[in-house]
Amino acid sequence: MTNKTEISSLGEFKLIDHLTENFELKHESSKFGIGDDAAVLDFSNNKTVVTTDMLVEGIHFDLSYTPLIHLGYKSVAVNISDLYAMNATPQQITVSIAVSKRFSVEELDLFYEGIKLACDNYNVDLVGGDTTSSLTGFCISITAIGMAKEEEICYRNTAKPNELICVSGDLGAAYAGLQLLEREKRVFADNPKVQPDLEGYEYILERQLKPEARKDIFELFKSKNWIPSSMIDISDGLSSEVMHLCEKSGLGCQIFEDKIPVDYQTHKMAEELNMNSTIFALNGGEDYELLFTFPLDMHDELKECKGIKIIGHTCDISKGRQLVTRDNNEIELKAQGWKL
Amino acid sequence: MTNKTEISSLGEFKLIDHLTENFELKHESSKFGIGDDAAVLDFSNNKTVVTTDMLVEGIHFDLSYTPLIHLGYKSVAVNISDLYAMNATPQQITVSIAVSKRFSVEELDLFYEGIKLACDNYNVDLVGGDTTSSLTGFCISITAIGMAKEEEICYRNTAKPNELICVSGDLGAAYAGLQLLEREKRVFADNPKVQPDLEGYEYILERQLKPEARKDIFELFKSKNWIPSSMIDISDGLSSEVMHLCEKSGLGCQIFEDKIPVDYQTHKMAEELNMNSTIFALNGGEDYELLFTFPLDMHDELKECKGIKIIGHTCDISKGRQLVTRDNNEIELKAQGWKL
Repeated sequence: MTNKTEISSLGEFKLIDHLTENFELKHESSKFGIGDDAAVLDFSNNKTVVTTDMLVEGIHFDLSYTPLIHLGYKSVAVNISDLYAMNATPQQITVSIAVSKRFSVEELDLFYEGIKLACDNYNVDLVGGDTTSSLTGFCISITAIGMAKEEEICYRNTAKPNELICVSGDLGAAYAGLQLLEREKRVFADNPKVQPDLEGYEYILERQLKPEARKDIFELFKSKNWIPSSMIDISDGLSSEVMHLCEKSGLGCQIFEDKIPVDYQTHKMAEELNMNSTIFALNGGEDYELLFTFPLDMHDELKECKGIKIIGHTCDISKGRQLVTRDNNEIELKAQGWKL
Repeated sequence: MTNKTEISSLGEFKLIDHLTENFELKHESSKFGIGDDAAVLDFSNNKTVVTTDMLVEGIHFDLSYTPLIHLGYKSVAVNISDLYAMNATPQQITVSIAVSKRFSVEELDLFYEGIKLACDNYNVDLVGGDTTSSLTGFCISITAIGMAKEEEICYRNTAKPNELICVSGDLGAAYAGLQLLEREKRVFADNPKVQPDLEGYEYILERQLKPEARKDIFELFKSKNWIPSSMIDISDGLSSEVMHLCEKSGLGCQIFEDKIPVDYQTHKMAEELNMNSTIFALNGGEDYELLFTFPLDMHDELKECKGIKIIGHTCDISKGRQLVTRDNNEIELKAQGWKL
């Protein structure tokens, strides 16, 4: 980076003005955004849906291989994913950050450029936040607010027995991308002259560095007037989320290993590391895909939908929660504890 | 502390369950709290008011002299103060924290005990949040949500010329308390056998460690059907907030030094440090008092109100923004740059 403007040269208020000057309010529900003690929103007769996520340097991201623009985008996307999982239309976000002095204004500009791209893509307004110093790492806290009619909202605890369990997209890719980045980081540490070897892995890298929330699936449901009987987003691995949904709904389930969608690059990466790509999908995390249930009679219609895969079905709790493997063994699903 | 349970022994989900098990939803507007991808709120025909604040170890608090229960309480109170400054009724909060492994479950329990005390006192529901690890310091991000009828909401940009400028409580005390704590910390560092000398300074210590948002003033306004013509909370010193309010409203002002309410202990502390208590009030910060304006004809009624002080008046912008000192000099107010 050529320019390095010190954050302290602007001061807190001017920094906020500077970082947010390109953001415009798009929604009728955003009555008042940045510039007062609080934002004022108007959802008239809709319900307000609120979610929040914190991302911490060294825990959730590694700045040595994470471009700041992608980090900004991802920070928003992971929150929007939670709103889609409630079947709510994203409306606003607040963005709070704590940054150390080693950051320049230009670096924060990149981070906010990513935030802006996400705001535009997911059609949300930035309406508030907080910008503060940190003695050490970079910490990001985003709250996302959506709206939904009461009858549209999808909870985790409302699946019924003998329903179809579906997922969007494919699973395990973000984890595969992380493995690749961590491997290349180690190689680089051993020999800084070696260029990272990332060719042929663009998809899994993007899934790790710049994941998308499934706006298309949310919009598909809206266009078809479908409301899943339950829904959750897949952020901690398929296994953990299936368990959550079934526990909250008081159900058992069967998930079929051969139905779990896994991309070719994810398979290839797992193979290179002598690991099983099913384990990536079950326990990898950061997929930000949607897991949802529909009544059995939706089977044929769902089969036709691009980007949706039926991976199993719910059943009575007495039957347990099973993964049916490719060789037709049944093993009990575990929320955590799948060895990676 | 006798017990030291490692956070990792519980795991993230059990930790959240454990920390939030004593919290109950009190508000009709809290349709669904913790336990899904997002919380669901219902404000029917009211506006939704949203604010967020981040508190970072080493920047906003020093754990060597900040009890965790007070820190939890303060983290909520500073957000609630922003809602009162909008004249909105607090309804919900989300609490996100990043903590290092050196924290025990028992220590987090104390922090959440403070959060709970604040939830009870300010009558708000904890409806969500995020709990994550940190490699280094403790980072807290709270979003507070309130509701208000459109016509009740108080902005910063709606003061009129020739209105009364008022403040609640007294100013500079939290800063004085901070000075005392920092002094005693230095004394302790030089000689760990010396007991801290805090007697006679209980009030300024409480203002620093466990500040209150002005629920009483908010309720007073409600009970009298008064709506300030503008309002802001005093978190960065009186000077900065007066400047904000006047700038946003396009006004000038006169503030009278001899009208600025300063507690005896604040005076005494300033004197001990050879400093001017007016400077504490103008630029000290963390008062969490309310600054608001009312039409001139409210003068007599406001004079009668305990806990409210008229400190000056707005005027045309051409007259500038002045502090009238005790010896009747006029000096220009500055948002920042008052030397402490």
